[in-house]
Amino acid sequence: MPYVNIRITREGATAEQKARLIQGATQLLVDVLGKNPQTTVVTIDEVDTDNWGIGGETITARRKQGK
Amino acid sequence: MPYVNIRITREGATAEQKARLIQGATQLLVDVLGKNPQTTVVTIDEVDTDNWGIGGETITARRKQGK
Amino acid sequence: MPYVNIRITREGATAEQKARLIQGATQLLVDVLGKNPQTTVVTIDEVDTDNWGIGGETITARRKQGK
Amino acid sequence: MPYVNIRITREGATAEQKARLIQGATQLLVDVLGKNPQTTVVTIDEVDTDNWGIGGETITARRKQGK
Amino acid sequence: MPYVNIRITREGATAEQKARLIQGATQLLVDVLGKNPQTTVVTIDEVDTDNWGIGGETITARRKQGK
Amino acid sequence: MPYVNIRITREGATAEQKARLIQGATQLLVDVLGKNPQTTVVTIDEVDTDNWGIGGETITARRKQGK
Repeated sequence: MPYVNIRITREGATAEQKARLIQGATQLLVDVLGKNPQTTVVTIDEVDTDNWGIGGETITARRKQGK
Repeated sequence: MPYVNIRITREGATAEQKARLIQGATQLLVDVLGKNPQTTVVTIDEVDTDNWGIGGETITARRKQGK
Repeated sequence: MPYVNIRITREGATAEQKARLIQGATQLLVDVLGKNPQTTVVTIDEVDTDNWGIGGETITARRKQGK
Repeated sequence: MPYVNIRITREGATAEQKARLIQGATQLLVDVLGKNPQTTVVTIDEVDTDNWGIGGETITARRKQGK
Repeated sequence: MPYVNIRITREGATAEQKARLIQGATQLLVDVLGKNPQTTVVTIDEVDTDNWGIGGETITARRKQGK
Repeated sequence: MPYVNIRITREGATAEQKARLIQGATQLLVDVLGKNPQTTVVTIDEVDTDNWGIGGETITARRKQGK
């Protein structure tokens, strides 16, 4: 019954990559805790770079500085 | 003062349906715990079917299989 | 496949009341959106009154003022 | 290492305002708890007014009533 | 910069198992999206079985029924 | 109506510090976006150091290494 939420910046993750994140996170819960994959839920939130910050700066600003 | 977050797949819920979810969740907190509805907050997140998985598969993939 | 998270202050909700919240939230998703209850997940977070604020004040402080 | 999530209604916050929220929330954690800003993450979720409710009503409905 | 939140029922996960979840989730983001592990944050929430429901029932109730 | 969730490691934040976080986050939303403080909600989650990771390691492990 686990619930996993993965938050990433919206920078072009493909449907195939998101499917791999969902598969991998589900398998991780099976491998480490023996959870039932059939009731393991994974959601992915893609957040605009204007809406994500680290170090007090938006990712938009950091990308412009080449960080 | 409760806060309720409802996450569903983005598959065409109407404004009227979302209003009913908000009304129903608020009333539930009033009925069960006697909470004040005026400070009960409900948010609804609609998540793309590529970004939601169960059983290690995306909802997009499951819909194609008729699940 | 909905996921519902209910956050309330930790002020003595009983196991029976929490079971009613889970049942009621699940039924709401069935009634309004026709969701499958078997894959509807509800979690309840009970948050200490020192850790919850509204109006810029903690609930602990508000309770002392009779709010 | 703190993680801050700010949820607001989607009603036209500008990139500059969102940058100020990120900067201010990060500074708050530095000032109050001495946290390292370089590993402090802030995300902002903008939620449609149809998807946000208080007092059992959507914000869309409340705006129409001048609330 | 990803942020991953893993929610599981509080049923005795060990510190070593939780460390493996954190390591595995971080590696997943590196492998699939090439994210920097140094700024990838993972949190684990352990939720009481009275506070988690699926199918409209608490996990406490389901465990008693041998589910 | 904003909702702010602040997640920190459980390492001894005092009630007074948590009250300052709540006050500061509320004021930030007033200052930047002109939000009404009376309906601004702030919650603080304190997460065990075994349950928080960065760089693929738990905070418990990092503290032992003097990080």
